[in-house]
Amino acid sequence: MDIKYNVTKLKENKKEEVKDYVSVEEPLEMNLRFKKNDKWQIENLSITMRTPGNDEDLIAGFLFNERIIENVNQIVKLNKQGDKVGDYNVQNKIEATIDNIKNIDIGKLKRNFITNSSCGVCGKTSLDTVEIIKNDKLNLTFPKIKKEIIMKSPDLLMNEQSEFSKTGGIHASSLINDSGKVVATREDVGRHNALDKLIGYTQKNKLIDNNSQFVACSGRLNFELVQKGLMSNIGVMAGVGAPTSLAIDLAKRFGMTLLGFVKKSSFNIYSNKERIIL
Amino acid sequence: MDIKYNVTKLKENKKEEVKDYVSVEEPLEMNLRFKKNDKWQIENLSITMRTPGNDEDLIAGFLFNERIIENVNQIVKLNKQGDKVGDYNVQNKIEATIDNIKNIDIGKLKRNFITNSSCGVCGKTSLDTVEIIKNDKLNLTFPKIKKEIIMKSPDLLMNEQSEFSKTGGIHASSLINDSGKVVATREDVGRHNALDKLIGYTQKNKLIDNNSQFVACSGRLNFELVQKGLMSNIGVMAGVGAPTSLAIDLAKRFGMTLLGFVKKSSFNIYSNKERIIL
Repeated sequence: MDIKYNVTKLKENKKEEVKDYVSVEEPLEMNLRFKKNDKWQIENLSITMRTPGNDEDLIAGFLFNERIIENVNQIVKLNKQGDKVGDYNVQNKIEATIDNIKNIDIGKLKRNFITNSSCGVCGKTSLDTVEIIKNDKLNLTFPKIKKEIIMKSPDLLMNEQSEFSKTGGIHASSLINDSGKVVATREDVGRHNALDKLIGYTQKNKLIDNNSQFVACSGRLNFELVQKGLMSNIGVMAGVGAPTSLAIDLAKRFGMTLLGFVKKSSFNIYSNKERIIL
Repeated sequence: MDIKYNVTKLKENKKEEVKDYVSVEEPLEMNLRFKKNDKWQIENLSITMRTPGNDEDLIAGFLFNERIIENVNQIVKLNKQGDKVGDYNVQNKIEATIDNIKNIDIGKLKRNFITNSSCGVCGKTSLDTVEIIKNDKLNLTFPKIKKEIIMKSPDLLMNEQSEFSKTGGIHASSLINDSGKVVATREDVGRHNALDKLIGYTQKNKLIDNNSQFVACSGRLNFELVQKGLMSNIGVMAGVGAPTSLAIDLAKRFGMTLLGFVKKSSFNIYSNKERIIL
């Protein structure tokens, strides 16, 4: 599922305002309905950020891959639930009714899931609960970054990314200032970990200056990464890859400038373009 | 952190046995130690798959980004824990002692983490707990796939990936047979979701034939993806990107053939190369 967003495309010295497709990212709350001691019981299993579509396949595969069920035919009913959200009118809850379930320890099951993000999402609209954490726009002082510095950021990331050149399989996040100096870089096989490491280090050493810096990431930009950036009032985030719909929505809601597909001579601006000096 | 693995590199008709760098992926169990009603209490916060190194930055950034703490200086002590594992001798537990913590509802906090994977990892060795779920090698019948079909798989993924060409920001997983026919493809902004969707659909419709098929993925291959493949006895998994150390270890332990950096005229074999027809 995709949706068109307004995008400012920069290529060398040309600027173009276009509508471009973005992949939709929305939370899916997965619930399990099963009988225990002859009583129906509902347990929340997981919230995952997903692209809407084939949600029935997703929960079936998830339940099977986690061996909550031995066979996908144990699912006797699938109910989509929740208010319809977004321009695309999707429902963000799904409930699987399971027949013939073995004795499972839901508590143990939950502990065994690896968490890699936070958001606190419930049915209504995907962004509402973020406001619990952060209900103000970014502070009024913010960086202005020259487009040339943005275009240099993939190289700056790579130079600092000691491991990428060796393994080709690791993500990095850098804090870079408005003259193109790299303040710090952290790497990890997980994008979210690379950014957590960068924020942990730069917060501890008081290296963050919201007036003059931006964060560059090696991969695509999703909801989770933008949220982590917002927690430190980062005004500009740039990704080598594509942003998701929810990443753009979140950046717009809180006033962050979001940049994607950053290359040596081009990039896209998805929000708050006034911070980029053309 | 990286480590060298034996890799069979295929390029057109040349075969080369080399040692090549792979990014290390290991679980990190993050625990929180804090005072409640004047008593010290320890809560398990999260398990995340990460690249060892800067674990102190990671937990600090995680706690701050999740607003479990308001300031990284609330962390008064960081303890690495757990047995040393792997050739690289890392510890996979870390405990943060927090001073002056606000009243937090740990239960609520946990519910708000998005789970996107399972594994059930504890300190000892990262792979041990997988055996709970699956303690046999793959079934003895397995596919033999010609190298030309593997090299075609990125194109096959792309053709089926209706959204990728539009947004450039989505992952896909395909089940492909030994003559290069795509059985099914599923897409998602999350790699793990694309594979869950594929497995859910193909399990439900009894489309999986372990004698003649392999799974191709658009991104890098990590522990989680290999585990999901193993749950359906998939004998060969191919990724466009790099595999992690733990993905290779897991594939070796359970007898899966793991392929990475798959391109039009080259790819790498990380385990069980006998299933690839050269």
